[in-house]
Amino acid sequence: MLADLGVLDGFGNVSVRHDKDANRYLMSRSMAPGLVKPEDILEYDLESVAVDARKQALFLERFIHGEIYKARPDVKAVVHCHSPTLIPFGATTVRLQPIYHMSSFLGVGVPVFEIRDAAGRGSDMLVRNGAIGAALARVLADKPVALMRGHGAVAVGSSVPQVVFRAYYAEMNARLQAEALRLGPVTYLTAEEAAASARTNDGVLLRAWDLWKRKAMKPE
Amino acid sequence: MLADLGVLDGFGNVSVRHDKDANRYLMSRSMAPGLVKPEDILEYDLESVAVDARKQALFLERFIHGEIYKARPDVKAVVHCHSPTLIPFGATTVRLQPIYHMSSFLGVGVPVFEIRDAAGRGSDMLVRNGAIGAALARVLADKPVALMRGHGAVAVGSSVPQVVFRAYYAEMNARLQAEALRLGPVTYLTAEEAAASARTNDGVLLRAWDLWKRKAMKPE
Amino acid sequence: MLADLGVLDGFGNVSVRHDKDANRYLMSRSMAPGLVKPEDILEYDLESVAVDARKQALFLERFIHGEIYKARPDVKAVVHCHSPTLIPFGATTVRLQPIYHMSSFLGVGVPVFEIRDAAGRGSDMLVRNGAIGAALARVLADKPVALMRGHGAVAVGSSVPQVVFRAYYAEMNARLQAEALRLGPVTYLTAEEAAASARTNDGVLLRAWDLWKRKAMKPE
Amino acid sequence: MLADLGVLDGFGNVSVRHDKDANRYLMSRSMAPGLVKPEDILEYDLESVAVDARKQALFLERFIHGEIYKARPDVKAVVHCHSPTLIPFGATTVRLQPIYHMSSFLGVGVPVFEIRDAAGRGSDMLVRNGAIGAALARVLADKPVALMRGHGAVAVGSSVPQVVFRAYYAEMNARLQAEALRLGPVTYLTAEEAAASARTNDGVLLRAWDLWKRKAMKPE
Repeated sequence: MLADLGVLDGFGNVSVRHDKDANRYLMSRSMAPGLVKPEDILEYDLESVAVDARKQALFLERFIHGEIYKARPDVKAVVHCHSPTLIPFGATTVRLQPIYHMSSFLGVGVPVFEIRDAAGRGSDMLVRNGAIGAALARVLADKPVALMRGHGAVAVGSSVPQVVFRAYYAEMNARLQAEALRLGPVTYLTAEEAAASARTNDGVLLRAWDLWKRKAMKPE
Repeated sequence: MLADLGVLDGFGNVSVRHDKDANRYLMSRSMAPGLVKPEDILEYDLESVAVDARKQALFLERFIHGEIYKARPDVKAVVHCHSPTLIPFGATTVRLQPIYHMSSFLGVGVPVFEIRDAAGRGSDMLVRNGAIGAALARVLADKPVALMRGHGAVAVGSSVPQVVFRAYYAEMNARLQAEALRLGPVTYLTAEEAAASARTNDGVLLRAWDLWKRKAMKPE
Repeated sequence: MLADLGVLDGFGNVSVRHDKDANRYLMSRSMAPGLVKPEDILEYDLESVAVDARKQALFLERFIHGEIYKARPDVKAVVHCHSPTLIPFGATTVRLQPIYHMSSFLGVGVPVFEIRDAAGRGSDMLVRNGAIGAALARVLADKPVALMRGHGAVAVGSSVPQVVFRAYYAEMNARLQAEALRLGPVTYLTAEEAAASARTNDGVLLRAWDLWKRKAMKPE
Repeated sequence: MLADLGVLDGFGNVSVRHDKDANRYLMSRSMAPGLVKPEDILEYDLESVAVDARKQALFLERFIHGEIYKARPDVKAVVHCHSPTLIPFGATTVRLQPIYHMSSFLGVGVPVFEIRDAAGRGSDMLVRNGAIGAALARVLADKPVALMRGHGAVAVGSSVPQVVFRAYYAEMNARLQAEALRLGPVTYLTAEEAAASARTNDGVLLRAWDLWKRKAMKPE
């Protein structure tokens, strides 16, 4: 679904917390997200050790997921992506702000993770161990989305439909905000508008989910 | 058709006034517009009460439609959308103006609805009751299109093909106007050119309709 | 083919001079170019009178074609389009110039037709008679492409593949030139480079034609 | 695959060094790269003479490939393209720099080839002989990518998957860098970050390859 929407390409990863065991999460082996089949999904503990790896290659960045699940009991699903429109906001000092109601969940602020603070100036940019993952989780704090400088973004949610909705509309907001900034000063949603709108959206997000699902399930 | 054209995504809604009873309009239950089938369409009165809701969830924003049909006897069809290119114009002080003849219907002016004037600073941005809908209809006045700050737009027409044409070319005009403004001062259509061109276009809009219909009716 | 490439949408028109009679040209009746079938094609004389209209509606703007064929014996095919990326260049004072070799045919200059000079300030923007068509042909002069302010563009060629190539790469050049102008001062092709390159391209343009044809002929 | 990704259109060319004879390379006859079938592939020596041309038309620019294989024993595959987003960087003084880890291979610098230095001010822009090809290879030096002013780019790699990855992410980087520069000063990857990241990416690039291959192999 996120590959169809242009949020993911050959890279990025999506996970969900285990519905029976809050100390486990499910994510595919290392592969393009658009190609994942049920048999590619592995179970990980919160240290991001695959419980039964069956000798499959694992995502180097699985620690993004494990550390966020550890720090955020409210989070049930995590998307890590390299969305094209988000990269410029991660590499400059302009902050993402909600330009319309669909991305009102951004109204609580969108922090930017600078990996140099956690891994120094010579890292390969990847969240490749628990310490860097924990640093990212601290920057994310209680927010729904954080950008990662020179890398991408992470979105979290209380369900898979919510995290997909957030990943998509964060990308869309970046596109529209960049465009609006070129026209002139922008009126963003107030904090109250954003909070009220985000509550309303949580009640209707299956409307988008149903549409995206139909597209994703189409025979090729 | 509007989903194919990128004007609508999982959200937005389209209605048509009842051809037998001017005090009724037809619109789907709450769902992604691209998935609507004939059996999803409900009949509403001008207070936006569904005549026979069959326990279906209704669009929270049906009041956009009801209040416009009430205020504008000439309007036979209404599109409410979150067109990506229109959002930046709703959030800044740059006004949409017709950059080419296809969007000449914009020449009479494109007002911007500020929901804070009708619902205060803490609304959830939605036109969720008749009073906000009536305020929007007053801002729209006798125009074909109004923008909604931080939300989207509404287009009206005397037929479904006309409102689809207007929704599409308003979106296109926003894209081209933004691009042209980055090149330098823009020569827009004069009021006379716009009026003459809009009259001409009303005579040929089925040319686009036929094309879009063929695409929309293609088996998937 | 041009509909596939995004150069034409529901509007615009394509013609070719009759291969047996230089005082005739062939063009469809008034309809979306992407839907034209062989039986929709009519024969016109150079006054743009349909020789056998069979009561079909004709393009209001057929005079673009007739007047250019009259003024330019070298021209065998004409495309009139509303290419999105060309509109901003027609509405501002920035001139199209060749940013790369694929659009080197632009190196001889791209004039802009201002319909107000021919039809006053209250026209409906259309080239709806022979006088306006002749004025456009005079502005085009001996060039391959002219822009039409607030309307679109016209491209001409000595063959259908050449005019399609020109319509497509004029559109592409506009996109790339606009992008480059935002980065800083642009180095365009010199007049000599452009002339040499245009000659070379004329020898290889079937390479693109073959690709576009395969796409256009695909069963839907 | 590169045609699917928008890196190549009707023009451009892709070659691979012969796996048995380092003094030979394989490339199609002159045709749109998206239409190449196995029987269209010819064998060339490093002077870019086709060993058995079977009277087929050859690419005028085959010298790009031959001269790079001659100068760079490490190179096993070459892509020459006219990627839309790279053209503006070749025509201005803004240098491509890696804005995110996917394009970290650009961290060693991206030189720009000015054909006027090798062929004067009146060339047709093409690398149509060995001398111009050798000049391009000298500008490329030991880098993975060079831009060609007013023309396109060349990417090289130690394998076909690597060169495809580089051609695609160079294009993507150009898009994202241009967007970021409009927001404000950009933080690029440091040289150390870029080098470390490029090493990591070389280990995972088949992840994208597998996805692109599936799309390219889909029955049409």
